[in-house]
Amino acid sequence: MRRLFPILDWGPQYDRAALGNDLLAALIVTIMLIPQSLAYAMLAGLPPEVGLYASIAPLVLYALFGTSRTLAVGPVAVISLMTAAAIAPLVATGMADQLGAAVALAVLSGLILLAMGLLRLGFIANFISHPVISGFITASGLLIAAGQFPALAGLSVRGETLPHLIGAIWQKAPEASLTTLGVGLPVLAFLVWTRSHLRPLLLKVGVAPRLAGVLSRAAPVLAVVATTLASWGLQLDLPVVGDIPRGLPLPTLPPLDPALWQAILLPAALISLVGYVETISVAQTLAAKRRQRIDPDQELVALGIANLGAGFSGGFPVTGGFARSVVNFDAGAETPAAGAFTAAGMALATLFLTPLLYHLPKATLAATIIVAVLSLVDLSALRRVAQISRSDFLAMLATILLTLIAGVEAGISAGVILSILLHLWRSSRPHVAVVGQVPGTEHFRNVARHHVITAPGVLSLRIDESLYFPNARFLEDRLLAALAEEPGLRHVVLICAAVNAIDTSALETLEALNARLRDGGVTLHLSEVKGPVMDRLLRSHLRTELSGQVFLTHYDAMMALAPEVTRACHDAARCETARARAAR
Amino acid sequence: MRRLFPILDWGPQYDRAALGNDLLAALIVTIMLIPQSLAYAMLAGLPPEVGLYASIAPLVLYALFGTSRTLAVGPVAVISLMTAAAIAPLVATGMADQLGAAVALAVLSGLILLAMGLLRLGFIANFISHPVISGFITASGLLIAAGQFPALAGLSVRGETLPHLIGAIWQKAPEASLTTLGVGLPVLAFLVWTRSHLRPLLLKVGVAPRLAGVLSRAAPVLAVVATTLASWGLQLDLPVVGDIPRGLPLPTLPPLDPALWQAILLPAALISLVGYVETISVAQTLAAKRRQRIDPDQELVALGIANLGAGFSGGFPVTGGFARSVVNFDAGAETPAAGAFTAAGMALATLFLTPLLYHLPKATLAATIIVAVLSLVDLSALRRVAQISRSDFLAMLATILLTLIAGVEAGISAGVILSILLHLWRSSRPHVAVVGQVPGTEHFRNVARHHVITAPGVLSLRIDESLYFPNARFLEDRLLAALAEEPGLRHVVLICAAVNAIDTSALETLEALNARLRDGGVTLHLSEVKGPVMDRLLRSHLRTELSGQVFLTHYDAMMALAPEVTRACHDAARCETARARAAR
Repeated sequence: MRRLFPILDWGPQYDRAALGNDLLAALIVTIMLIPQSLAYAMLAGLPPEVGLYASIAPLVLYALFGTSRTLAVGPVAVISLMTAAAIAPLVATGMADQLGAAVALAVLSGLILLAMGLLRLGFIANFISHPVISGFITASGLLIAAGQFPALAGLSVRGETLPHLIGAIWQKAPEASLTTLGVGLPVLAFLVWTRSHLRPLLLKVGVAPRLAGVLSRAAPVLAVVATTLASWGLQLDLPVVGDIPRGLPLPTLPPLDPALWQAILLPAALISLVGYVETISVAQTLAAKRRQRIDPDQELVALGIANLGAGFSGGFPVTGGFARSVVNFDAGAETPAAGAFTAAGMALATLFLTPLLYHLPKATLAATIIVAVLSLVDLSALRRVAQISRSDFLAMLATILLTLIAGVEAGISAGVILSILLHLWRSSRPHVAVVGQVPGTEHFRNVARHHVITAPGVLSLRIDESLYFPNARFLEDRLLAALAEEPGLRHVVLICAAVNAIDTSALETLEALNARLRDGGVTLHLSEVKGPVMDRLLRSHLRTELSGQVFLTHYDAMMALAPEVTRACHDAARCETARARAAR
Repeated sequence: MRRLFPILDWGPQYDRAALGNDLLAALIVTIMLIPQSLAYAMLAGLPPEVGLYASIAPLVLYALFGTSRTLAVGPVAVISLMTAAAIAPLVATGMADQLGAAVALAVLSGLILLAMGLLRLGFIANFISHPVISGFITASGLLIAAGQFPALAGLSVRGETLPHLIGAIWQKAPEASLTTLGVGLPVLAFLVWTRSHLRPLLLKVGVAPRLAGVLSRAAPVLAVVATTLASWGLQLDLPVVGDIPRGLPLPTLPPLDPALWQAILLPAALISLVGYVETISVAQTLAAKRRQRIDPDQELVALGIANLGAGFSGGFPVTGGFARSVVNFDAGAETPAAGAFTAAGMALATLFLTPLLYHLPKATLAATIIVAVLSLVDLSALRRVAQISRSDFLAMLATILLTLIAGVEAGISAGVILSILLHLWRSSRPHVAVVGQVPGTEHFRNVARHHVITAPGVLSLRIDESLYFPNARFLEDRLLAALAEEPGLRHVVLICAAVNAIDTSALETLEALNARLRDGGVTLHLSEVKGPVMDRLLRSHLRTELSGQVFLTHYDAMMALAPEVTRACHDAARCETARARAAR
């Protein structure tokens, strides 16, 4: 029960102090969330109220089921972009209207997340590697910014890929409105400035650090208020948010067309995975700061239920947002109740504030989106990753380029598939080193890197990887090649110190190798076999059929197979002579 | 050049002795191959001459390009079954006739194999694990036998799955012919008897062991001759092979319908992979006996060209056969020229022998197939695999059941996908052990398995796996859970002795963990880091940001972090007292 309802953990100890802190945090987050919700609904190509609706029911549900004390869920930039991309073809083919498609997407994402959580399949998210998710977020940020820049000039441009967007902007550029630009650009400049300069300024004038952090993140609210007043007071002629229906969201049912559900299966799965990866990463960062615990499987359940709530209340897919969660945390939220209070705040806003938002310029929302997403863009990560791993770099580059050129679904899918294939490819070619004795010691090192002595007729191979079916045949090829190339070969010793695990394929390969080497007059030995590997060896045919022995240490093996050379090598000076004598 | 034309290796040294040996081997293999080729064409649902054609051009081409000296290619049982399964739906939907579909299948398999060889993608075949291929072959053997048993009674039954076959047999049973059964059952009994008893008998009467082996495998030829004579001489009324067109195969072009090629893409890919896995395993077994070398990538090229040859000469997919290769080897074949001579023998057979095969009873061919495939069935492997690994057992069982119930394509695909998923799942949960000091030593062991001493406030975790994206998050969850559970925790030391490699995702996870643990007041240390992993650590942010140290040995780490307990533990008697004192 406690696992499924984390509220049982913190509910009973809830007191007045926590209530005060949670209420204050909720107030601040609500103020920040109103323009964000409108902006992300706009980004997803949906009516503004949908953004508000997505910030009510999901928050209450997450508060009941989530294990993070401070995570704030709701519409976020990348998921809104993915929603826009998923909806567009459905609307274009007339399969559903925008709202119906969005609701179906939220419900299906919710079901997928819930199923993954109940079946404990959270590990599936592991297969989105860091370089892939980071490349995807960078490319999404670029795509979002490219789509929102025109809105600063009053242009409404849509497109799922960079080439489309550029083409559309090129075509519509003549229609740019200077009035809108006159609002949009200053807001953008102001927001960019506040990103880096407001917090230091506030600190300098003596504001407490935590409050300064919260205030500097609330700058978009200031921009919203100022430009709404200007647009209304000066009767400016620019695109504004306009009428938002007042009132709470009504229960909504998604369209029940099977073709629609089939069409959104992949997008919904991708939205679920990307949203989950983001959520868990934010939640864990915040939880660690207070030494709290996140249960990744329960987070899936909570996020799933939150998305079901979003769908059935006429919203669109939601996830844990980084910026708003940090504000919630910094503002002092202590329990998930803060989320429920935020939901109440958003509900009040839909009831009473929407008329005030009529004159809010769309350009202001575009500017807040641009500033929010440009902080997601991190192209320098490409260079960092390139320094560490070539295959990670490849996967990341492919993700970025494909996301930009072919869209979000193609980008993230290709990245995931490519990184899994590269991973399998790498693990199919384990590092295997021929080793020899370091003169004057009982140690053995790679012959290619160190001055070491090898005994004639004995091949010592160190396997630097667990042995399983993707790499079993590689070892076989390697050993059979050695067999064909070295006519004087009598013994092969496999050093298994780094073999953490072995599977049936690898065991059978070893059995076959053992037989083939024996047919070729070569004895197969093993050394430094770990416990779990030895357990399995003993249950295989090798227990009785291994032509050679299993040695505890490789030094023992060499003492048994080439005693003169090995013993002589203990004395560094005598090494070469002993080897030369043995080779004759 | 030599890599692409292995004939350049052995051609120049070809002499009269080798010629004699190769000619004798070719003669024996030809005699064995004639009934086999007819039988496997029948199994694939094709006219008998197609089997003969598939045993001419492919053999010559493999002799030119293959790296195995003794591998004999041609039609084999499992690939013939897969061909039958691939062709059936195409014929049923009228997309192609049987021969056209078979030819297209051979050409496409050839192209796939050739491309894999030229692009050096042979490693893809690694992903068919041993339990999956062994389960698949067992299930195929059962399917083939179930399809051939009715032919012993003169019934012609076709079906792609066991339920279909059983249903068809049930329906047709009343039509069973006693005459046919009177030929089929004795032949079957004779062949089963020769399998186990002929060779010992021949050895007892003084036949040389190698010759005895060859003769006992030629028993089907005796059955063919005897029953053909009986059928002709006694004018028996039973299904016979009938008219086989005389003459060499003519150049054939596959149908060019794009829909057909798309429909056979998956079957052709599966036939290629299964055929390749079988070929390489036979070739390596034989090559090792003579310490010869197989080049797996070149084998792909050779097998690809052989299949192209099969297709363009009106044959069906071929691969390296186990039984015939062993006969070739035992009969003394020295070079691939033996294969070319076999091809010449088969060509002569199509020119002059086909009238003699008119009266060959189909029941005899069915019996030879049954005996050949029953040796492939190895259900005891299930028990063996179960003892070694549960996930391998699951993959094998799924392969067998799905192959029997849903057909060969579903079976092998499901097996491969399941084993890759299980592999990824396993590698996403690496073995991680909390370790403590063995009293009186500098060694550290799993606290769950040994009596060891842990120092208060220090968590020592040994990671028994390389760190990469599939398992990065697992480590994170594990450590953050420890952080939340142990309020007194001050230091975490990760023992990386078994971490053979690390990727960007894992490095970034460590960076995040480092920051999160630091936020929670815990210092992160590493010990026993391997060279390649250290190289990457030094290129990441961890180089400057690691809150703790990197220790050469774990003992060093513990001496630095908990010196009293660790030093005291060197003396087994003082361990507990030191620990108790430190915990106060």
